[in-house]
Amino acid sequence: MNIGIVGLGRMGSGIAQRLARAHFTLYGYDVHPTATFGFPLTLCSSIKDVAEKTSVIILMVPAGEIVDKALTEILTYAPQGTIIIDGGNSNYADSIRRAALCKQRDIFFLDCGTSGGLHGKEHGYCLMIGGEKSAYEKLIPVWEAIAAPHGYVYTGPSGSGHYVKMVHNGIEYGILQAYAEGFHLLKEGEFANLDLGAIGHTWEHGSVIRSWLLELLSTHLKKDATLSNIPAQIGENGTGRWMRQEAQKSNIPTPALDAALEVRAESQKKGGNYGTKIVSLARLLFGGHVQ
Amino acid sequence: MNIGIVGLGRMGSGIAQRLARAHFTLYGYDVHPTATFGFPLTLCSSIKDVAEKTSVIILMVPAGEIVDKALTEILTYAPQGTIIIDGGNSNYADSIRRAALCKQRDIFFLDCGTSGGLHGKEHGYCLMIGGEKSAYEKLIPVWEAIAAPHGYVYTGPSGSGHYVKMVHNGIEYGILQAYAEGFHLLKEGEFANLDLGAIGHTWEHGSVIRSWLLELLSTHLKKDATLSNIPAQIGENGTGRWMRQEAQKSNIPTPALDAALEVRAESQKKGGNYGTKIVSLARLLFGGHVQ
Repeated sequence: MNIGIVGLGRMGSGIAQRLARAHFTLYGYDVHPTATFGFPLTLCSSIKDVAEKTSVIILMVPAGEIVDKALTEILTYAPQGTIIIDGGNSNYADSIRRAALCKQRDIFFLDCGTSGGLHGKEHGYCLMIGGEKSAYEKLIPVWEAIAAPHGYVYTGPSGSGHYVKMVHNGIEYGILQAYAEGFHLLKEGEFANLDLGAIGHTWEHGSVIRSWLLELLSTHLKKDATLSNIPAQIGENGTGRWMRQEAQKSNIPTPALDAALEVRAESQKKGGNYGTKIVSLARLLFGGHVQ
Repeated sequence: MNIGIVGLGRMGSGIAQRLARAHFTLYGYDVHPTATFGFPLTLCSSIKDVAEKTSVIILMVPAGEIVDKALTEILTYAPQGTIIIDGGNSNYADSIRRAALCKQRDIFFLDCGTSGGLHGKEHGYCLMIGGEKSAYEKLIPVWEAIAAPHGYVYTGPSGSGHYVKMVHNGIEYGILQAYAEGFHLLKEGEFANLDLGAIGHTWEHGSVIRSWLLELLSTHLKKDATLSNIPAQIGENGTGRWMRQEAQKSNIPTPALDAALEVRAESQKKGGNYGTKIVSLARLLFGGHVQ
């Protein structure tokens, strides 16, 4: 099976590497191509090239117009029966629209929420996949190659994959805010000189709040708990705000998410504190997000 | 080493079992004693009895006056040099006061935050220990027996162990609220019939939000996602409110914790929703908390 990958950034190249390891034949395209990847991938000079050589095309580009632009080009050149996968953080409503557009040309469009960040390349990613079930089923070997063991799920109709990923990201916002508040209080509360790295590391073992994010945080805190080089401003990619909008539409309260969004917005406007540095640190560690 | 355990409920008996496995000689006391435990423990008819037979006494009783009452009795009978461990969820300020009281009689008092709930008996607990360092060090074999591998830490002066446990619990409140909001939206949002168990289970593998709490939740959701038998009212043990008070004292914002506390209080007054059932479910699964 020939697979095309459009967008070879952190996530795109990580996915490509896992597919290469599983011996898929890969054709890649990026607006800013890297010379070498360290695994077999034929670099194409245009999306047209990718579309003509492959039957499965994975989009790993930033959400928004870039997806539409790439899709329009693919649809111009790809033959009927091609399966297009949007592995980015697209809005689920866009994915519903795009799937309908593709269907008119007898092309399949799967929306695939992709979690795992920088570490997915090694551990495997977590995939939440929506769209035509027959297309999903045809690609089981592809999901098996990209995902961590047991790390992919068919979520249902078009849009549901990105919807579930949006919810995943909203949960992440709340979890990070919770850890941030805790470490902030440990750092600046009643007891001076608490060893945050040792405490966080101990929490990984047997405590109710053990998690992968805690592991990342405490590993860093063990080396440096001052966080003097970590920005106090927290970035965001939009999915948290989308979740709030969707929750409001469905009349579902999300006060922890709201709190996390408010803290992020304030950190951008007024600067932050040790807690916002914890959130920034986590985003840097799991996703390489500088802002 | 003879060890006494006062309070043989879920946590106390779990700790006793781990100590028995490590071949400590155990003397136990409970106001409502169980006839058999399935491991060697001599049941005493009074705290006096326990205090006279042991040099280390672990209190596993509910926080508050019950601790003071037990402590007064122990101090009446225990010889100098005895080490008393409060393994419950006491307020750290009480622990500072109690350690000072014990010190007047040349008795050591260690405050030991204990996480792990129902599952600690098997996996080992996570211990956060404050107080006189020499007393802590004398008991390394005891911590090793009770804790999960790498699951104990010396936090510093008296009170710091319970302070760190208070923060741990406050983080737990925020994390649970974050998962609750996410599963609530998956259940009642845009897409009907999403498979919450399958999605939650997939998130355990390779996603950024994987955690032990998520494992507990999704294992239950796989069997039953209706949660029809789970109460929508969420209980609490006070540590979350303490953390908010401490944070206010130290001028540290905790909006995610505040949100979680507000949701819990409202669920008690007005009843809850699918999200509050998720929090109740988690508390039931990790701690056996019925309310």
